[in-house]
Amino acid sequence: MKLSELGEFGLINLIHNSSAGFENAGCPTCKEVLVGIGDDAAAWQSDNRIQLATTDTLVQDVHFDLDVITWEELGWKSLAVNLSDIAAMGGIPKYALLSLALPGRLEVEDISKFINSMLHLAWEFGVVLIGGNIATAPNVVITVAIIGSAKGNAMLKRSTASPGEQIAVTGYLGLSAAGLEMLEKKIVSDPEVSNILRRAHFKPLPKVKEGQILIEQGVKTAIDISDGLVADLNHICESSKVHAKINIEQVPMHPVVIANFPNYQELALCGGEDYELLFTADEATVTRAKQALNCPVTVIGNITKEKLPARVTVVDSKGNIIPYRKGGWEHFKNGVPEVKFA
Amino acid sequence: MKLSELGEFGLINLIHNSSAGFENAGCPTCKEVLVGIGDDAAAWQSDNRIQLATTDTLVQDVHFDLDVITWEELGWKSLAVNLSDIAAMGGIPKYALLSLALPGRLEVEDISKFINSMLHLAWEFGVVLIGGNIATAPNVVITVAIIGSAKGNAMLKRSTASPGEQIAVTGYLGLSAAGLEMLEKKIVSDPEVSNILRRAHFKPLPKVKEGQILIEQGVKTAIDISDGLVADLNHICESSKVHAKINIEQVPMHPVVIANFPNYQELALCGGEDYELLFTADEATVTRAKQALNCPVTVIGNITKEKLPARVTVVDSKGNIIPYRKGGWEHFKNGVPEVKFA
Repeated sequence: MKLSELGEFGLINLIHNSSAGFENAGCPTCKEVLVGIGDDAAAWQSDNRIQLATTDTLVQDVHFDLDVITWEELGWKSLAVNLSDIAAMGGIPKYALLSLALPGRLEVEDISKFINSMLHLAWEFGVVLIGGNIATAPNVVITVAIIGSAKGNAMLKRSTASPGEQIAVTGYLGLSAAGLEMLEKKIVSDPEVSNILRRAHFKPLPKVKEGQILIEQGVKTAIDISDGLVADLNHICESSKVHAKINIEQVPMHPVVIANFPNYQELALCGGEDYELLFTADEATVTRAKQALNCPVTVIGNITKEKLPARVTVVDSKGNIIPYRKGGWEHFKNGVPEVKFA
Repeated sequence: MKLSELGEFGLINLIHNSSAGFENAGCPTCKEVLVGIGDDAAAWQSDNRIQLATTDTLVQDVHFDLDVITWEELGWKSLAVNLSDIAAMGGIPKYALLSLALPGRLEVEDISKFINSMLHLAWEFGVVLIGGNIATAPNVVITVAIIGSAKGNAMLKRSTASPGEQIAVTGYLGLSAAGLEMLEKKIVSDPEVSNILRRAHFKPLPKVKEGQILIEQGVKTAIDISDGLVADLNHICESSKVHAKINIEQVPMHPVVIANFPNYQELALCGGEDYELLFTADEATVTRAKQALNCPVTVIGNITKEKLPARVTVVDSKGNIIPYRKGGWEHFKNGVPEVKFA
C-alpha cells in the first residue's frame, strides 16, 4: 500500500501502535509519560514539574510558496505554529530547537531575516533558541521543536471532553483560509482587508496566554485550530469518545471574510491555520473563561453522547443538518502541492 | 552573499550572534540555560535537574541514498546520530520527537520497517517516542529531537579542554567513511568485511553508556566524532581556545580498513560518522576512564597552548607534520549531493 492511500492519520496510528508494542515491553521512562502520541504536545513528569514537548515541520511548496511568503513571515510562522501547540496544552513554552534544511543557492540576507523574525517572536513569548541543526537540501524544510512546562501542573488535553459540555472558540474562524484563497486566486481587495488576511495567514499570534488562562479557570479540554474547526473538533471527539453538535450560525466569522468570500461558511468550518483555541467545559466554566480572557469567546455548540452519523454534526438554528466538506487538510491524501494550508 | 559561500558554520555563527542579541535584551528563561548553541546538545537547569536537548536531520540524497540504505538501516541511523549527541554530553536520553517529511508514493511497508527499527533502538536505550509530526514532501527529510537529562548533574562539554591534557578516542576511526567509500565505489570485498563496513556506516552504535562512564570518571571535555576526527577536535579547540597535536601513528584504525583502503589514514583523520567519543583529560583521569570503559580507548595526542599554524596539528612519531584535507564535512560548501557523510 502507498502512503498516499494510508494517509497522514493512518500513518500516525501505525506509529502509535508500533510504539505501544515497545512500551508494553516495559521501560522505566514510559512510566513518566503523561501524554504520548496523539495530542498537541507530549507531556511527562520530571520531578515535581510536568514538561511538554512538541514539533512541527513546514515544507516548501507544501506549506509555503517562497514566491508568496516573505522570509520574515516564514520565520514567524515556523515558530508560531509550534507555540500554538504548547498553547493548546495551556503550557509555558521555554526552549526551541531549530532544524533547517536549505539549498545553498539561498541568500544569506534572506535567512538572516528569517532568523531575526523567529527570534523576535521567541523573545516576545520568553522562549530561547537553544540549538538546532543545519543541513543542505534541494528545497527548504523547517522543523522547530519546543520544550516547555505545564502551568500549575495542569494540562489541556483532547481526551477529556464530556457530553453536556459547551464547545467554545476564541477569536474568528476562516480568516487564515480566506488569506490563502486571496493569495492563491490573486483576489484584489483594499489594502486594509488584504493586510488583515495576509497577517492572519502568515503571522498568526499563538494563544499562549489564553491557554494558560483556560487552565486557571478550570478548563480541561482544548485543541488549537490548525487543521480546521470540524477536523480539530473531530480530533477531540475521537480522543474523548464523544460526539459534537455545532450551530453554523454561532460560529464566529470575521466581517471581512463574510463581505469578501461567498464561501465564508466553508472557510470557517474547514479552513485551517487560524490557531485559535477550541475548548469544551461546563457552562459555568465557559462563562468564567469568557470573562477572564481578553479576546472574543463564542459558544458554538455542545458535546453530545448520541450516536450521530458523524462525530461532528453541523446544524443551523432550525436544526437542519448542514453538509460540510469531509475533514480538514490531511497530508498525503490532499492533492499537494497545490493546496498549501496544513 | 549566497549560503553556499557562507557555509554551515558561518550560518551557525550568524544564528548564534542574532540569538545573543535577543538574550542580552533579557529574558528569565535565558538565565536557566547552561549550554546554548554550539555544543552537541543544549542544557538547562530545571529545578534540581539538568535537562538536555538535541536535534539532527537526515536529508535524502544529501545524507542517504534510498537505492543504497535500507529503510530498516535508515530508521536506526536517524535515531542513532541523535543519541550520539546526548552521549557526547555524557547524558541520559529519555524522550524522542520524530518529524517525517515523506512523499506519498512511498510504500507503507517500508515506513513500517523504518519505524520499527527506530523504536527498537529507542527501546534498547530506554528512550520513548512521545510525539512528532508527519508532512508530505517531494523528498524524504527526517528530523529527530531527543530530550534527556544530565548524569549526576555533570556534563561533557566542548569548551573545557586545557593545555597538557591527553586526547583520547573510543573504538576505531575511519570505519564508517570506509563503508561509504565501499558503497559509492562499489568495491567488492568478502561478505564479512562488507558487513563490518556497512554496519559501521549505517548502524552506528551510539556511545551513550560510555559517555556516562566518562562523567563518572571525572572527564569534563568530549565530543562525538560525526564530522571527522580533525574537524571535531577542531570544534573542541575552538570552543576551549586551545590547540591540539595528534600523532597519526597512534590513531586507532581497524585492520579491515588498513587492509582494504590505501587511503586509510585520510579516512581515519577526516572521515566522519564514526560516532565514537573523542575526549580530553589529565593522564590519571584518562587512565581511570580506560579501565572503566568496556571498549578500546586510545591516547592519540595532547592539548597544547602553542600558537601552531592550525588549531589541530597532525604529526608522525618523528615529529614531521602530516598534511590533511582541511576540515571535515561542511554543509553548503561541499559538493552535494555526491558526498553523503555529514
